[in-house]
Amino acid sequence: MTRQSQYQLLKSDADTSQPIHRRRRVGWILLAFLSALAISFYCFYPPESAFASSDKSKEHIDVYGSWNTTSAPLKQCVPPTAPPAKPPAPINLWAPLTVPETASIQAWLEHPDRKLNLTRVTASYPSSNPNSSVSLADNSIFVIESYHPPKEEALAYLDSADPHKAEPPTRYARVTIHHGAAKPKPVIRDYLVGPLPVGKDTQLKPLKEIYHTEDGEIPWNARGFLNGNDFNMLWAPKLREAMEDLFNASLSGLQSDTLTAGGSGPFSFDGSFRRMWLSWRRNVPGPWLHPINFFQYVDVSGTDPSQWGILKIVYNWQVFGSVDEFVEAWKNGTLVRNPPILLDDSDSNAKYNWTQRLRTGTPRDLDHLPGPRSVSFAGLRFRVDQRTQYISWMGWGFYLSFDRDMGLGLYDIRLQNSRIIYQLAPQEAMAQYAGNDPMQTSTAWLDRFFGMGLAVRDLMPYYDCPAEAVYLPATTMSPVGSFRREKAICVFESDSGRPITRHTGWMEGEFGATKGYVLTVRSTSTVGNYDYMLTDTVILCRPAVFDYMFHLDGTIEVRLSASGYLQGGYWEPKQEGYGGKIRDSTMGNLHDHVINFKVDFDIAGTSNTLLETTTAQETVTQPWFDDDWGNEVIQQKITKRYIENESEALLKYPTNFQGGYSIVNQEETNKWGYPRGYAIHPGYSPVHNTVVGSKRLLNNANWARYNLAVSKRKESEPSSSSMWNMNLPGNPAVDFHKFFDGENITQTDLVAWINVGTHHLPQAEDSPNTKTNVATSSFILTPLNYFDADISMESSNAILLGIPQADGDPYTFEDYGVKQDFSCIPEPLVPFEYSTIRSFDLDGREKKGGNTEDMRKMAELFHRIKFEL
Amino acid sequence: MTRQSQYQLLKSDADTSQPIHRRRRVGWILLAFLSALAISFYCFYPPESAFASSDKSKEHIDVYGSWNTTSAPLKQCVPPTAPPAKPPAPINLWAPLTVPETASIQAWLEHPDRKLNLTRVTASYPSSNPNSSVSLADNSIFVIESYHPPKEEALAYLDSADPHKAEPPTRYARVTIHHGAAKPKPVIRDYLVGPLPVGKDTQLKPLKEIYHTEDGEIPWNARGFLNGNDFNMLWAPKLREAMEDLFNASLSGLQSDTLTAGGSGPFSFDGSFRRMWLSWRRNVPGPWLHPINFFQYVDVSGTDPSQWGILKIVYNWQVFGSVDEFVEAWKNGTLVRNPPILLDDSDSNAKYNWTQRLRTGTPRDLDHLPGPRSVSFAGLRFRVDQRTQYISWMGWGFYLSFDRDMGLGLYDIRLQNSRIIYQLAPQEAMAQYAGNDPMQTSTAWLDRFFGMGLAVRDLMPYYDCPAEAVYLPATTMSPVGSFRREKAICVFESDSGRPITRHTGWMEGEFGATKGYVLTVRSTSTVGNYDYMLTDTVILCRPAVFDYMFHLDGTIEVRLSASGYLQGGYWEPKQEGYGGKIRDSTMGNLHDHVINFKVDFDIAGTSNTLLETTTAQETVTQPWFDDDWGNEVIQQKITKRYIENESEALLKYPTNFQGGYSIVNQEETNKWGYPRGYAIHPGYSPVHNTVVGSKRLLNNANWARYNLAVSKRKESEPSSSSMWNMNLPGNPAVDFHKFFDGENITQTDLVAWINVGTHHLPQAEDSPNTKTNVATSSFILTPLNYFDADISMESSNAILLGIPQADGDPYTFEDYGVKQDFSCIPEPLVPFEYSTIRSFDLDGREKKGGNTEDMRKMAELFHRIKFEL
Repeated sequence: MTRQSQYQLLKSDADTSQPIHRRRRVGWILLAFLSALAISFYCFYPPESAFASSDKSKEHIDVYGSWNTTSAPLKQCVPPTAPPAKPPAPINLWAPLTVPETASIQAWLEHPDRKLNLTRVTASYPSSNPNSSVSLADNSIFVIESYHPPKEEALAYLDSADPHKAEPPTRYARVTIHHGAAKPKPVIRDYLVGPLPVGKDTQLKPLKEIYHTEDGEIPWNARGFLNGNDFNMLWAPKLREAMEDLFNASLSGLQSDTLTAGGSGPFSFDGSFRRMWLSWRRNVPGPWLHPINFFQYVDVSGTDPSQWGILKIVYNWQVFGSVDEFVEAWKNGTLVRNPPILLDDSDSNAKYNWTQRLRTGTPRDLDHLPGPRSVSFAGLRFRVDQRTQYISWMGWGFYLSFDRDMGLGLYDIRLQNSRIIYQLAPQEAMAQYAGNDPMQTSTAWLDRFFGMGLAVRDLMPYYDCPAEAVYLPATTMSPVGSFRREKAICVFESDSGRPITRHTGWMEGEFGATKGYVLTVRSTSTVGNYDYMLTDTVILCRPAVFDYMFHLDGTIEVRLSASGYLQGGYWEPKQEGYGGKIRDSTMGNLHDHVINFKVDFDIAGTSNTLLETTTAQETVTQPWFDDDWGNEVIQQKITKRYIENESEALLKYPTNFQGGYSIVNQEETNKWGYPRGYAIHPGYSPVHNTVVGSKRLLNNANWARYNLAVSKRKESEPSSSSMWNMNLPGNPAVDFHKFFDGENITQTDLVAWINVGTHHLPQAEDSPNTKTNVATSSFILTPLNYFDADISMESSNAILLGIPQADGDPYTFEDYGVKQDFSCIPEPLVPFEYSTIRSFDLDGREKKGGNTEDMRKMAELFHRIKFEL
Repeated sequence: MTRQSQYQLLKSDADTSQPIHRRRRVGWILLAFLSALAISFYCFYPPESAFASSDKSKEHIDVYGSWNTTSAPLKQCVPPTAPPAKPPAPINLWAPLTVPETASIQAWLEHPDRKLNLTRVTASYPSSNPNSSVSLADNSIFVIESYHPPKEEALAYLDSADPHKAEPPTRYARVTIHHGAAKPKPVIRDYLVGPLPVGKDTQLKPLKEIYHTEDGEIPWNARGFLNGNDFNMLWAPKLREAMEDLFNASLSGLQSDTLTAGGSGPFSFDGSFRRMWLSWRRNVPGPWLHPINFFQYVDVSGTDPSQWGILKIVYNWQVFGSVDEFVEAWKNGTLVRNPPILLDDSDSNAKYNWTQRLRTGTPRDLDHLPGPRSVSFAGLRFRVDQRTQYISWMGWGFYLSFDRDMGLGLYDIRLQNSRIIYQLAPQEAMAQYAGNDPMQTSTAWLDRFFGMGLAVRDLMPYYDCPAEAVYLPATTMSPVGSFRREKAICVFESDSGRPITRHTGWMEGEFGATKGYVLTVRSTSTVGNYDYMLTDTVILCRPAVFDYMFHLDGTIEVRLSASGYLQGGYWEPKQEGYGGKIRDSTMGNLHDHVINFKVDFDIAGTSNTLLETTTAQETVTQPWFDDDWGNEVIQQKITKRYIENESEALLKYPTNFQGGYSIVNQEETNKWGYPRGYAIHPGYSPVHNTVVGSKRLLNNANWARYNLAVSKRKESEPSSSSMWNMNLPGNPAVDFHKFFDGENITQTDLVAWINVGTHHLPQAEDSPNTKTNVATSSFILTPLNYFDADISMESSNAILLGIPQADGDPYTFEDYGVKQDFSCIPEPLVPFEYSTIRSFDLDGREKKGGNTEDMRKMAELFHRIKFEL
């Protein structure tokens, strides 16, 4: 670590190359010197004008005035740590289970009294022995997680006279068990375990009421992956020679293989089978962009891997009904080979390195300097209670939650101690592709399956979040143990870059501005790495950056930004229309991303109504219009309508955004008589899914057909999706349309299901990674007559200018005692470092060593397919 | 000025209340103490768990690691001044005229040889003598401005081998003269004066080819305001007593009047008359929100004020055909008075103070501290050439222009020395209102009339722009002289808050991030102040903040944010549907804002084509689809079409944004064979005008009917509007639809006319001022196969992580030598100050003293109407 100034501007920049020393004398000498320089280059007016010199001398003060100061040495800044918050209740009702809690439940479930006949899952990979771990025909635990209490109980606790003295709701865990041994057929079941902590009253009961499948059970073939064994016996050794020849490849074992496979989803339509297309790629960094035009349709149904196999092979658009057919065609020379790839570079190593994130090209001017960063010189202004993961800022306050399926969620969002949102959390992320090959055209990801919480990644300090960000940890459970990331979530305040309100006026009290600040809570998920179905583009060209941005006026913007690798296809002219060529033989395939959020509004209580506002043109006549312009005036008018029936609440934004939707409380009005409410505004890229009726997304993501939808809140409808929805498009575990069954939704507890998304038409600039500044989408929740006036006027980081009373007088001003030029000597920062995650076994014991390998294993779990045993 | 630390966190925050001294020993003692404290409150896991302690100790390092440093004292930072830029040419071809240049042209025009018979305009207001100034029946100069050279000449100069040696294009000024003395009827004419500087070859020639009115002349009744005399003889003294009674008002003279009037526009349909509705308001701060339900329809046609008068009066929805009728009704008691206003506050002073920008309510938690601000510790990274107003940053470079009508524009925008945009500039700002009173329903502003450049306001340091911003001046001419603002434009770099690309991967070269930075160029216009037609809401609830934001990857976002006061109406239930009640008797009226920008693209040269891309659903069958899923696949597909005819290039974004528009060069392809191009993406609030066919906006703002349009670039079509368009909806000086006359637009020089806007349905939170975070709109110009790959990968402010080779090893990384934790002692900043503008008379002499009054006068010119002479 160094405190020394490492950067100097280029020597040619005479005006700035001299750092200013803190000794006054040197400063004055420099001032004189630099002033002369300034005058020589600063000149907006031609030098021959007499006017010019007076102008220069004035500008000189503006530009260099900051040097001409007489001041005491700066003091040291307070360190950028968040002061403690005071949560309204001492318990975060939505906190994840701790590792010890998970372990205790695991042990309780494994107890013979439970009669669950459980086998522990181990991370068998890269073991070469398929018998070293659980068999699919065993019963095993998939996940143990916190199950959130009923809202009624939570509110009774939170809104009690003193939550510190009140009894919190009984705690439960949700447990998913793979019943591979179930007869007559294997099945997945969800259970609730509670009360917690485990004790003599603890019971196990089926959790069925939230699922729409038969009897609330999940078909086996929709299951998640337990470990890396699923494909161990799939590969046909007889393919090896042909593949090595056709692709100039080596397939001698996992680490040295030069090819690797990735697959498509969904795996099933209704649970009756489990099959998928695999696409083969070069086993190099960024493999998703190196497909080789070779596909296999594989069957991995049921619990017996000996029954699995390759059903079909497609190579260079030739279809073979079996491995034998394909090998025979290769042998007898009837196979038409891939066209030779025209490489732009004769260097064979360079062929593939364009998919690495190495800096390229000529360095930019002055880019050897670090760019600006945000500093809270007077200390951080948001509070964090690390124990409960409660955050407060400028009147806002909320708890964090975290789960395997979707990661970060926010609960009990209050502003000035009034609850506005009970729950704000992502629900599902859809990515549906198009193409002219078996892989892309079969792909309709629903990433909840893979676990966006499990796929959360430690944020890179300085790069993913500002230097001052405060990080919070998250722990998630996988079938083989738990993982804890210390930097799963970051929180930071930033200047929004523009005043939230301003006005230039000439009467007292008109002239001023209020600074715009935003508090951001962020997490990033990277679903998968570089092989199997968890390609990095599964969701929104993942990594996806989830931002929850709180504003001073009561507005919340929820924004999702995407980066990472495309799910590339093999480019041939016959792919025209399905995407864009981005390299000699690589294309980015056309796809839509739609991500659904649950927003459980509580506007002045839980009795809320959906208000539809529309504007339309009208022609009116008025008695005062018999003038030069004629009788008629064409103008617009607002129509308001309460949508009373749930079935009418599957909504799209109106054409030209003429009107919109909001959640209001008809019984609670503001001072001017309007029902208090929050409006839902589209932000960036307000889109829904383009494709309707695809069999691969038939009924498992119907929320993606709309921009938003509003339903009556029910404990039996906690989410718009489930992790099994991906593989059950014809028989979804959660059928969103079933939420909308004709119920009256006036003055009842409402949930808004709101989408963000992008239509991604890939282009050269998506290589190597998609850019977050374009691949971004958001929605905005903003007070609508919720208040009587703009509450950002409460801010003290504001200025009010008085009007000079006499000519030449300076402007007077009121800054409420907050000096924007306040400065101090910043605390040294921790140089960049990136830490490994911590992993725990199923007994809750931390695994020593092996962190990096664990990290990699977890990311690659099920995703890296070796060619043969 | 102070360098002392003024802020301490609240004493109760034990962990942060101690500033850290720079002496090492004290630091270590504190570290020990605070570490203990940290352990005591930081605990995510329950303390009874053995696991918890190891967790705490790790977190302790993360949170407090920054204190545990051994480092030398920080050096002083370099001051935040912009290093000089090197413009590609030594002359800014689009620079405004200097004050001396304007004065010399004024003098040349006034020379008897020109035979223009000119009378000088003086700011007569607040003179009580109408004869002290120019008469409308005189000839006078309205404006003298730089006229930009033909693009062909400009490119020949800029693209010459060495612009420093090449001959620049001949310079011209545009001059607008009010020919009040013209016979048989008064008229406005535009002229070109040149070559400049004025000399023996200088000539005056009519500028007609850019206007669509008859003979290119402008009807007199569409004219702009010369000074404050226009209404001097309008008021009927006989109204005084009635008004004072009805409104409990005093009308004894301008400064002490308790009522003031504001009017509506347009003033004319086709130039045959000049009439408008005036709305009366309380003469208090924020008068726009204090209407009193009293309106006059006035005639101010022609040049003879003795012919002017009040044609109609509307009070409390009662219509009177004359002043006499109204006064008679008041006298005889048949007048139905306004309902008494139910005030929420018995304090009569408080009745009106809600429209002031005073801080209100309870201070927010920790808001006594200044919020975070951006610091370029290693110095600013953008360059500014003050003389030419040329700016460069990270490969970008461009010149600034500035004019009376629309203010800031950007020219010759290059990236890596390739021109992408020749001109990027706002064209017009429309605001069309709806209501149930004569004022609102008659209002369709086009703010170019008022001069958005003339209405630019000095930016407030720290509040309108970040502390580090570099300011640039602008000078504009009014009929009475010139005004120079030193802080008309600000430029700053900022961290975009999220990486532009990132990926978490596990192979070498996959794992890393590139920081996202943005360079912003900003100006703010406040059209009008608090009276007449220039209410602050004329455009987008003005002030409007214009941002041009440049990204590292070649993307530009153009964003407009609005604040300021609503153009309020008098609330009565019969106003329902036309806006929202925001106070006892005040409403905000429904209105649309649409702002048009000219984007003169040059994509790899001037031969460009408009590409339309659409996506739609298709059903396909493929040989490999005879599987479990059936033969058919429903997916989407892209269709591309070159729009070849200008008449087909009036465009709206497709439903659900399925596709879009871009400008490409068919003859220049990227490495992968695609025509290089730039796409036009919608950003926030991509709307067009709701109302079509209103007589008050019949043909003068037809660009507002679309989201964008693309036309062949012509010197005769420099702008989509003109300052006179507002008052000529039936006979527009510039008829945008005439640009679209069936010409072929393939591989020719193209201009995209792109709109931003908002549908503003006012609500309580618009009071006192509209909020920029919701009232914002943008469009995004982004490379589309313009490059072969993402050029933001050139950035050195990036990180690339290596994968640890052994368990427990730290992550290796490459940061390209740029340390994000670099720190130094910041230069002291100039405490907040706001400077007055500098004003110059028509001879170019600076007016001494009177700055503040001048400033006010300029803002109020024509807008503050005294009741009587």
